[in-house]
Amino acid sequence: MNVENAGNTEPSFVSLPLAAELIVTIIGTGLIGGSLGLVLKDKGLAKHVIAVDNNPENQQKALELGIADEVLPLKEAIAKSHLIVLAVPVDALHTLLPAVLDKVKNQVVMDMGSTKASVIDAVVNHAKRKRYVATHPMWGTEYSGPEAAVKTAFVNKATVICDAENSDEDAMQMVQEIYRAIGMHLIYMDSAAHDLHAAYVSHISHITSFALANTVLEKEKEDDAIFELASAGFESTVRLAKSNPAMWVPIFRQNRENVLDVLNEHITQLRKFKSCLEKENYDYLQELIENANGIRRILK
Amino acid sequence: MNVENAGNTEPSFVSLPLAAELIVTIIGTGLIGGSLGLVLKDKGLAKHVIAVDNNPENQQKALELGIADEVLPLKEAIAKSHLIVLAVPVDALHTLLPAVLDKVKNQVVMDMGSTKASVIDAVVNHAKRKRYVATHPMWGTEYSGPEAAVKTAFVNKATVICDAENSDEDAMQMVQEIYRAIGMHLIYMDSAAHDLHAAYVSHISHITSFALANTVLEKEKEDDAIFELASAGFESTVRLAKSNPAMWVPIFRQNRENVLDVLNEHITQLRKFKSCLEKENYDYLQELIENANGIRRILK
Repeated sequence: MNVENAGNTEPSFVSLPLAAELIVTIIGTGLIGGSLGLVLKDKGLAKHVIAVDNNPENQQKALELGIADEVLPLKEAIAKSHLIVLAVPVDALHTLLPAVLDKVKNQVVMDMGSTKASVIDAVVNHAKRKRYVATHPMWGTEYSGPEAAVKTAFVNKATVICDAENSDEDAMQMVQEIYRAIGMHLIYMDSAAHDLHAAYVSHISHITSFALANTVLEKEKEDDAIFELASAGFESTVRLAKSNPAMWVPIFRQNRENVLDVLNEHITQLRKFKSCLEKENYDYLQELIENANGIRRILK
Repeated sequence: MNVENAGNTEPSFVSLPLAAELIVTIIGTGLIGGSLGLVLKDKGLAKHVIAVDNNPENQQKALELGIADEVLPLKEAIAKSHLIVLAVPVDALHTLLPAVLDKVKNQVVMDMGSTKASVIDAVVNHAKRKRYVATHPMWGTEYSGPEAAVKTAFVNKATVICDAENSDEDAMQMVQEIYRAIGMHLIYMDSAAHDLHAAYVSHISHITSFALANTVLEKEKEDDAIFELASAGFESTVRLAKSNPAMWVPIFRQNRENVLDVLNEHITQLRKFKSCLEKENYDYLQELIENANGIRRILK
């Protein structure tokens, strides 16, 4: 892993074309694509933003909310753009990414998906592979759709760029500059490493949260009691359970093996707590909690 | 369960003694007791706050931070006070609560512990039982000690009062008025119901968070990767893992049976996710997530 300094210096946006001329197509105007559109326009990083979205309601919202200046069909949008950003669920990427590269001359293409290895595999032998940059900005919320988009997204967060050596230098430079310009710092790793780490620091959190919600909903038939008693701690651990299955089923599917590994480890860890309570071994329970406190090293 | 309206009207503090005369002892000046001291003084709800704490550093901090006006030994503090508040870990309550009631004449005693049945059992036959009010304010953070105390604690949260029929009316009235005056609304239930609900909406969240921290710390030897990649979602689900074992081991111990029930259910729910991934049953995975989305009904 190669981490650059999270500099807060103002970016010098020197790529060709200049920001003042840049035309960007965003395919998928939900939480992630929508937020990118908002921030590109808010910071004047693009002259013109084109939205492509299958959903007519999303098209309308993208225009109303200022995510994009124009809605076009895919082919026309690509032809008019310097940069094409794919912000669709990871299963859709597998067919959409090669289809976009098929239509590209010299444009730059990037995706923002939460898994990387299988997406990159889908275009590994594509003639235009080098015009594509594989990225994953480490930001999201439990909400989805254009109305969930916020222009403060991404600030001070990391973006992972995968398999950078397989992208053209000018394509990489454009993508790097855009991410830096929206306040992110860049981390470079191969796609296998990305998918493993993402399973640990993002995907498993969603599974535990979904499962916790199901646990409480299963047992607590008295909804009122939960509503009245639930404190900030409960809300914190369960809020990701509001997340959209249309985004998360494909992520778990694409990163199945890593997620299964982490999930097995997590169940093992929970069984240790269970065993402590069953055997009334409170010294070991104390040890388990002290060990968990080690997360303070990482989360300030 | 009996829930009063969460009114935001200004409290009328009419108990005897009047707020202007009220002397309160807080035993345990950590996160909970410390926050109570700060808010009592900030809102002018007590004339004088006395801290009792075994730890000399905490005594010093309680004075420095404005949690209390004076530090006294237990016996003297009780003799001078109208209200004695116990804010110590729940295992300590078992011996401290009867010891305090032994020294009480007509004062009011309340605890703020996270489990209720075993604490109440410890004084069920005490001659001064009716001077005691069993409470659990549903507020906390993952931090502990006097320096974690905040005067904005408790606002707009619920306090559970247990087995209210076993407390004297004037004692109940004083405790109710103080909680309302610090911005809380009151919920009444028996101690068994409290402990069951608390297992679901608070205790299990801490176990899942501790276990998630241990999962990630076990597998992710590359701390830097976690630090760089961890997003707000991960932080949200794992932050409770910073919580203090001195507080949580006793809670799990006192509420062992309920916590074990919920933990078993939680492991069952996680196994469903595991089975979906193993069998590549993505339709059922979709269903599980849609069901979890039901938590939106409860968490706005």
